[in-house]
Amino acid sequence: MTEFTYFKNDWTPVIDDYLAKHLADEVEDPKISQIMAYSVMAGGKRLRPLLFLATLNVLGKKIEEPEIRIACGIELIHTYSLIHDDLPAMDNDDYRRGKLTSHKKWGEAEAILAGDALLPMGIQWIAEGSNSAKLAAMITKAVGPNGMVGGQYLDIDSTNNASVAGDAKFINKMEWLKTGCLIQASVEMAAVYARATDIEQVKLVDFAKAFGRSYQIYDDLVDVVETSEEAGKATHKDEEEGKNNTLTLLGIDKSRKELKNLIKQAKDDLHGLNGKILSGFFDLYQKVL
Amino acid sequence: MTEFTYFKNDWTPVIDDYLAKHLADEVEDPKISQIMAYSVMAGGKRLRPLLFLATLNVLGKKIEEPEIRIACGIELIHTYSLIHDDLPAMDNDDYRRGKLTSHKKWGEAEAILAGDALLPMGIQWIAEGSNSAKLAAMITKAVGPNGMVGGQYLDIDSTNNASVAGDAKFINKMEWLKTGCLIQASVEMAAVYARATDIEQVKLVDFAKAFGRSYQIYDDLVDVVETSEEAGKATHKDEEEGKNNTLTLLGIDKSRKELKNLIKQAKDDLHGLNGKILSGFFDLYQKVL
Repeated sequence: MTEFTYFKNDWTPVIDDYLAKHLADEVEDPKISQIMAYSVMAGGKRLRPLLFLATLNVLGKKIEEPEIRIACGIELIHTYSLIHDDLPAMDNDDYRRGKLTSHKKWGEAEAILAGDALLPMGIQWIAEGSNSAKLAAMITKAVGPNGMVGGQYLDIDSTNNASVAGDAKFINKMEWLKTGCLIQASVEMAAVYARATDIEQVKLVDFAKAFGRSYQIYDDLVDVVETSEEAGKATHKDEEEGKNNTLTLLGIDKSRKELKNLIKQAKDDLHGLNGKILSGFFDLYQKVL
Repeated sequence: MTEFTYFKNDWTPVIDDYLAKHLADEVEDPKISQIMAYSVMAGGKRLRPLLFLATLNVLGKKIEEPEIRIACGIELIHTYSLIHDDLPAMDNDDYRRGKLTSHKKWGEAEAILAGDALLPMGIQWIAEGSNSAKLAAMITKAVGPNGMVGGQYLDIDSTNNASVAGDAKFINKMEWLKTGCLIQASVEMAAVYARATDIEQVKLVDFAKAFGRSYQIYDDLVDVVETSEEAGKATHKDEEEGKNNTLTLLGIDKSRKELKNLIKQAKDDLHGLNGKILSGFFDLYQKVL
């Protein structure tokens, strides 16, 4: 096994257990707690919390309860974004990770509110775990109108809009905001929290930018490479619904090439750091390369 | 004019100007900025930011740009809650403050995202203005599943549920979470930010609890006392829609009496503080008393 696989296998169950336990313990109303946990515990890969923890590891920072709380806060926020993206007014998806989406399972008001509950609770965990106003400001910027939500807005605003279908700059920006900003924040918050030097911080942010961009392309490729059953959600859907992304722009072969370039670039960015575990995240892309 | 009226007249335009200017300057995409500003600039009373600033004033803390940024962050969060409460899946309201609600004006996806953008941006302004992780944790707790969103969940979960129609304890809890938590946080954040003594903090929190409770009763009374035109939204709607609140429980006369008791109690809570401006907030209730 690679160092990355060991790291992932060590920390994924810790993240899962923390999420399950603290959603049960810290949300007073058992019904809304159940609705929140339904989506959070739906079998996500915990990519963003693992990125946060792996970055701490690169910087030699010990991982204890406060660090797990921050990592899990990021996952709550990621889950909120999935619940709201799936809503009937947005992508209108019935399945996610092989399970009914939140609004299909619990109702639309319940899904909106589960998201509305996960977002502030995620920020709360980050603020409490880090005791840092700077981290609270970083995460809120990353998911606000100039970050993740801004990307989702560009997405719905441009769906079925032929004038942007070939606009690479627009598509890059939209994808970056939707996915890249939160991934970058997961790495950058760890760098700030662990008091990385300026040089370390630049390298890590460069890595995070390349990784974030690569992850969106990977995610689009999975959409066409996997069958619907494997992916646990509706696949081949983007094209049918007039969604614009790098894949519809470049096609499969060129997207794959772009992905390989980004992987090389990201690994180069880590030069001089103890970056084996972070580099190992690209093992996750195996099936589309 | 009372000291409260002077205070309100001084600071309301400062709050309004800050909100308008910074939504325009800090949100990069002009379209989502416009959608966010549409609801934020729809003529709210700025009750919560004024409460924050008035509490600073009581404690002798000077009001400058960082304090305005925190105050306006609270208003962004309040506006998000109104936009999501009005959604078709929630209260399904067409008008708010005499204008079309966000989803009627811009579309449902746009309204969901405007709310999703205002919430983190509000927390960001509070974290940046205060440079305090403690304030970030306080505001996120106040609006999360054990606060405002939890109250909204109880509300939709209990609408048309006859078994809670006469359950005063349940209704008090729901109303407290929906409205009281954010009002309390507006006062309590100011107390923590201005480093109030323990005694000052207890008094201010007691005041905030009584004021928060009183405000919900006031809001319910306005719903029946005012005509729809005056209130700028659909009135008499709660009863028709099977909503449970203190008013449906106690009736108008007893609600009014309860409101008067709470006002007396809140004013008593301020004993020993320079509380004239905070006491003056009850002038706002004139039309229902």
